[in-house]
Amino acid sequence: MKHAGSPTPTASHAAAGAVDASHAHAALIALDWGTTSLRAYLYDASGNVLATRGSAAGIMNLPCSADQGGFDAAFDDACGAWLEHAPAVPVIAAGMVGSAQGWLEAPYVDTPASADALVAGIVRVKAACGVTLHIVPGVLQRGELPNVMRGEETQIFGALGQEAGAANAADSGKRSLIGLPGTHAKWAVVQAGRIERFHTFMTGEVFAALRDHTILGRTMDTPDRPDTGAFLHGVNIAREKGQAGVLATIFSARTLGLTGQLSREQQPDYLSGLLIGHELAGLDAVLAQQQSALAGQSLRLIGNEALCERYRLALTQFGCTQAELVKHATERGLWRVASQAGLVKPAPQAARAG
Amino acid sequence: MKHAGSPTPTASHAAAGAVDASHAHAALIALDWGTTSLRAYLYDASGNVLATRGSAAGIMNLPCSADQGGFDAAFDDACGAWLEHAPAVPVIAAGMVGSAQGWLEAPYVDTPASADALVAGIVRVKAACGVTLHIVPGVLQRGELPNVMRGEETQIFGALGQEAGAANAADSGKRSLIGLPGTHAKWAVVQAGRIERFHTFMTGEVFAALRDHTILGRTMDTPDRPDTGAFLHGVNIAREKGQAGVLATIFSARTLGLTGQLSREQQPDYLSGLLIGHELAGLDAVLAQQQSALAGQSLRLIGNEALCERYRLALTQFGCTQAELVKHATERGLWRVASQAGLVKPAPQAARAG
Repeated sequence: MKHAGSPTPTASHAAAGAVDASHAHAALIALDWGTTSLRAYLYDASGNVLATRGSAAGIMNLPCSADQGGFDAAFDDACGAWLEHAPAVPVIAAGMVGSAQGWLEAPYVDTPASADALVAGIVRVKAACGVTLHIVPGVLQRGELPNVMRGEETQIFGALGQEAGAANAADSGKRSLIGLPGTHAKWAVVQAGRIERFHTFMTGEVFAALRDHTILGRTMDTPDRPDTGAFLHGVNIAREKGQAGVLATIFSARTLGLTGQLSREQQPDYLSGLLIGHELAGLDAVLAQQQSALAGQSLRLIGNEALCERYRLALTQFGCTQAELVKHATERGLWRVASQAGLVKPAPQAARAG
Repeated sequence: MKHAGSPTPTASHAAAGAVDASHAHAALIALDWGTTSLRAYLYDASGNVLATRGSAAGIMNLPCSADQGGFDAAFDDACGAWLEHAPAVPVIAAGMVGSAQGWLEAPYVDTPASADALVAGIVRVKAACGVTLHIVPGVLQRGELPNVMRGEETQIFGALGQEAGAANAADSGKRSLIGLPGTHAKWAVVQAGRIERFHTFMTGEVFAALRDHTILGRTMDTPDRPDTGAFLHGVNIAREKGQAGVLATIFSARTLGLTGQLSREQQPDYLSGLLIGHELAGLDAVLAQQQSALAGQSLRLIGNEALCERYRLALTQFGCTQAELVKHATERGLWRVASQAGLVKPAPQAARAG
């Protein structure tokens, strides 16, 4: 039995015939529209994903400039065929499309941020084809080190939406941690259905910059498959010997090579381990200021499965053995915000399940 | 009165006429030959620098490949005119020219490293023109996080050579700290005329990679002149609020811009302050493990004057107000190692001063 908020995405893009058939039941189009990619989902009224479309038309990679209708062109390319068959279907979008460089700016919602606050912050932009897009705002945490997210807030509410029924009620008051590994990794503290605070670590982007644009990359070769030993070596150096900080420890990716202790193929995984190890050590340090710790923590991870698996492995070194991967958080979150905004009404079947 | 080990470099390259005149007194040619540049010095028998030559022919930037005589070509270009007039003058070189990718590998000397150990590790390579180059080895510190330097060891001995007479004897047993800001900043603990141990921070190279190859650079503009306020803001954020580590704090260069607290022109200096602040905080943490600290420390800095001035400012935030800039450490160090290797004999005048 299915229930709203828990769509079951199709394994692959629906074939042309299937798409036509599915359009009869289309209830929502949702876009996860980031800096370098655009992903579109078509749902039925029960929140099942009928079809998906992906493209590289992120907001910094539009088919033509924004002035020349770049957003419209990317939107038409991704969703035009769907809209032709179901022109009245509501459309929601989250991510950098709502930034100052996006289609229309959706001003940030402050922490602590609830799903209701996100709904209240939705802005509307009318596409050239006449369809209205509902753009979900990001979240801002003010302070000396401000933090921002756009898109991850929707994924987080997708993960929170999975806490169904009794479990949800029991859980709602408990503080918990959700990690979103990636280019800019986010770690959010959630409580009572709200994003209380969060941290950003530029781990993925720094790794790429170090590998591609510093001396460290010159002695590296890409391995055929990930070297878990080298990765964990890096994690544990960061955890146990990382006092001097990441600016110092990264140089060991080179010197362990010079001294014959790390092969060219091991260096990328070692460096990845060092950076993720420093990220988790830094997270542990800020958790300690709040009388918390990674050790013994039961947390959730959202993101690319292979990357989340790296984080899960690294977390075990910090005493955290309960890291659960939340799948389909993006499409679940978009469905949840759309439902809460009244853009879709849960089907009777779904309502019963809730 | 002059003394060996304390040459007085000329303010600029000698004019053609002066070069001819000076060759009559030429006693040593020394090369500081790094990855991206080559600098050559011509000395008289008292250790005075008569002329200098600079070029971009670092070992990764030779006029032609090493197989095709790239090292010879770069050497001839820099020193050919000098050698024509003084073919018997000894030649010494330090830096990456002695690395595995250099002209001839000079295997590393282990820490603790004395000037005598460096001299014992000198390797000789014969150039096509018949001249023998004496290449000074680098220094290796073994361990879980090995460290290496090539070139900086010679600068450090140049700075140590300045402790003349009584002051030198009194100082020799005291542990002191020498910082060499740059692409790969080095911090060396020296005692009794030896390099006891050292740390490397990839601060300069990471700054360039972040500015040129991550999202942080996209909102930055280069200011007309350095913004000291923004720089110190970054230093103090790293020092006081840097628990999450540099992977986290650097994101604030962007978010302080998004929230209107940091202009585009302020972001480069803020980021520079953050990184140097994290470097010094990391250094302070490893010093603490050795019952030492930056606070109250009297230390020396070697390197580009403007960059050393940034470090001096940052150090004051850590309670270190006695940071002395050592000038001409490279040419003094090359002269000192050459003297100690017997390549040059101090002039009688110089010997009296010692």
